[in-house]
Order: sequence, then C-alpha cells, then structure tokens
Amino acid sequence: MNRRVCIFFAAFFMLCLNHTALAQSKTHRVLFAVTSGDEADWKMTMGNIRNLISGLKPDAVEVEVVAYSQGLNLVKRGSAMASDIAALQESHVRFVACENSMRMQHVTPEDLLAGVQPVRSGIVEVVTKQEQGWTYIKAGR
Amino acid sequence: MNRRVCIFFAAFFMLCLNHTALAQSKTHRVLFAVTSGDEADWKMTMGNIRNLISGLKPDAVEVEVVAYSQGLNLVKRGSAMASDIAALQESHVRFVACENSMRMQHVTPEDLLAGVQPVRSGIVEVVTKQEQGWTYIKAGR
Amino acid sequence: MNRRVCIFFAAFFMLCLNHTALAQSKTHRVLFAVTSGDEADWKMTMGNIRNLISGLKPDAVEVEVVAYSQGLNLVKRGSAMASDIAALQESHVRFVACENSMRMQHVTPEDLLAGVQPVRSGIVEVVTKQEQGWTYIKAGR
Repeated sequence: MNRRVCIFFAAFFMLCLNHTALAQSKTHRVLFAVTSGDEADWKMTMGNIRNLISGLKPDAVEVEVVAYSQGLNLVKRGSAMASDIAALQESHVRFVACENSMRMQHVTPEDLLAGVQPVRSGIVEVVTKQEQGWTYIKAGR
Repeated sequence: MNRRVCIFFAAFFMLCLNHTALAQSKTHRVLFAVTSGDEADWKMTMGNIRNLISGLKPDAVEVEVVAYSQGLNLVKRGSAMASDIAALQESHVRFVACENSMRMQHVTPEDLLAGVQPVRSGIVEVVTKQEQGWTYIKAGR
Repeated sequence: MNRRVCIFFAAFFMLCLNHTALAQSKTHRVLFAVTSGDEADWKMTMGNIRNLISGLKPDAVEVEVVAYSQGLNLVKRGSAMASDIAALQESHVRFVACENSMRMQHVTPEDLLAGVQPVRSGIVEVVTKQEQGWTYIKAGR
C-alpha cells in the first residue's frame, strides 16, 4: 500500500468521523403540527412551546409550528393566540400556514398574522421535516 | 500490509458507503395512525394523504393507514370513506386493520372493506414501522 | 504502512462495527404522551400499552407514559385508571408527571398515584426521549 492510498483512506476516515459527529450534535429541532380549531388545544400548545424553550435552556431550540386543516385558524388575523404568537416569534419560533388549507378555506396571505409564512403543503412540511431529523409533536389533546 | 488485506478493507469501505447511501436514499414512507371514530377526522386524513402524495411528486411515497380502536370503523363496510379508500388503494395506499380491535368489537375480516388487510396488533404495527424508519403521523385533530 | 498504523485502523473498524451494531440492536422503547383529560382516551391508552407488551413478546419493551396538561389527571389519586396503572407498573411501565402541569394545577407529589415520578417538564421529556431514539405515540383519539 503506497503513501497516496494511505492518504486517501485517512481522508475517508476524517469524513466518516465528521459525518458521525454532525449526526450526533444536539441542536433541538421540534415541529408542532396543529390541526385542531379548538382554542383549548392552541392554548396548551403555546404553553408547551414556552415550557420547551425554557426547559431546554441553555440549549438552543428551533421550533416550527405548522398550521393546517382547522389548525389554520390559529394563525389567522383575529386569532385568540395572536399575542402569544407574536411573543413566540420574537423567541424565533416560526409559524407556517398550509397553502392547501388556505385555498380550501379561502384564506389569503393577507388574512394571516404578521410573520406567518405560507408553505406549499402542511402535511408535506410535517413529513419532510421529520425526515430531516426534526422531532414531531402532535399538538392538542 | 499485503494485497489481500488491502482488498478486504476496500470491500469493507464499499459496504460502508453502500450502507450510508441506502440510509440516505429518500423513498418516503409514511404511516397514519387512525384511532378516532369521528368522520371529520377521517375526512381530514384522506385529504392529508392525497395532498402528501401530490405534494411529494415526483418522489415515490409508501403510505400505510393503520386503523385501530375507534378508528377501526374507518375501514369497515359501510364506512363513509369507502370510495375515498378505494381510490387511495389504487394509488397504492395500504389500509390495515388491528385484529385486537376487531376481536374486541366483534368485527370479522368479511366486515372490512375490500383490500383492507388485518394485522395482529395496530399499536405494534405503528411502533415497529416507526422503528423501521417510517414517518409517523397521528391522524385527526 | 507499518504495523502500528494497521492496528490503529483495525481498532477503528471494530469501533465502527460496534457502533452500528448498537444502533441496530432492538430493545423497543416507546413513549406515550398523554395530554387528554378524557377517560375514553385513557382507557384506550392502557389497552394499547397492554397490547404492545404482549404483541412484542418475547422482545423486551421499555414503556414510559408522560402525563401533562389535562393528562395529569390520569396519574392523580382517585384516577379511574388507578388499578390499570398499578398493574402496568408491575410490568415495568413507568408513569411520570409533568411538574409544570402540577404547579399550574396545584397538584403536589402526594396527590399522585404511588410510583408516579415527577419530571421537570412533560414536553421536554417527550422531546428528549425521542431524540434518544424512543418511539413516540400520541395517546388518545
């Protein structure tokens, strides 16, 4: 085995190690799927997110809330959770709304609370984020 | 290090690479657990599955719907979702029914919609599929 | 490549193999998140856990039930599920109660069923256990 081959293998190992290290690094990434139109479920979810962020400190947490089906109402202007949502957005919690649900329920981007971003499909968002390693929480009771 | 050892290591690397590649290949596999007897939950779930399949195109998606507890009613003859289920089965969505729930609720295989397959236990199905890398969606609100 | 390097690589491979083997070993670890105060949801969950344990036999299963929000009532003295819980605890199912929910609902450790352990935060427990490879089941309908 000559030197060149040896260097190649060494590089390969570094890559392996690096890959493993990356996979094990713990930035918490948590996705809440909100499909309920019930205010009690929303209230519980807002409290859960606050408790999650404070409970994991000093760790960093990325939180995304996906609102779809009846859950879309959570992120519409006039939502009873508007001020909770605004406060959580300041803590870098991201709220997204399902465009399929918006179309079905005749909701336009202007009908959404400030800072709420539309995504193509709520269910696709929930599935692909899980595939990328996000932890799934089904919101509500 | 002689040639034989070198070949052995090379083969081992191929195996490693292959394993990694397999782990990263993206066939989406999604399991919906239906435990609700509520038609609104079923309707939402059928819509979610359709949106998931169309939203992930051109990717392939394997979808399995596990019906147990009150969710068993979803896949019984006379279910309000019978035509939705038939259409989804044509798109290769698999519907399975929990035999524990069937026994408890005196439901025989003949009582199930065409193409619905019994599985020993709904909860075991949901757990083991997740262990095999399937993405879990708790159906309903 | 001298002998020492060769031994180093061999050791490294063993480590890799071992790591893979550990990751693939199947002790089932399943977490049920109970957030509902509804007795029908509790009853279903107790049945699910029993069916899971018997259905996975002879495999070993670690089960943890995290009670928070309205789900806290499940593990309070006087709970309609008290005898089910006692029996499951004998099968090594662990029941834990969220201290955030306890504080909010003025529940003291003495108000909990025997053997129920408080955890700092129910939602943190659910997220971190998932991160450690536990399979998540959202209890209830």
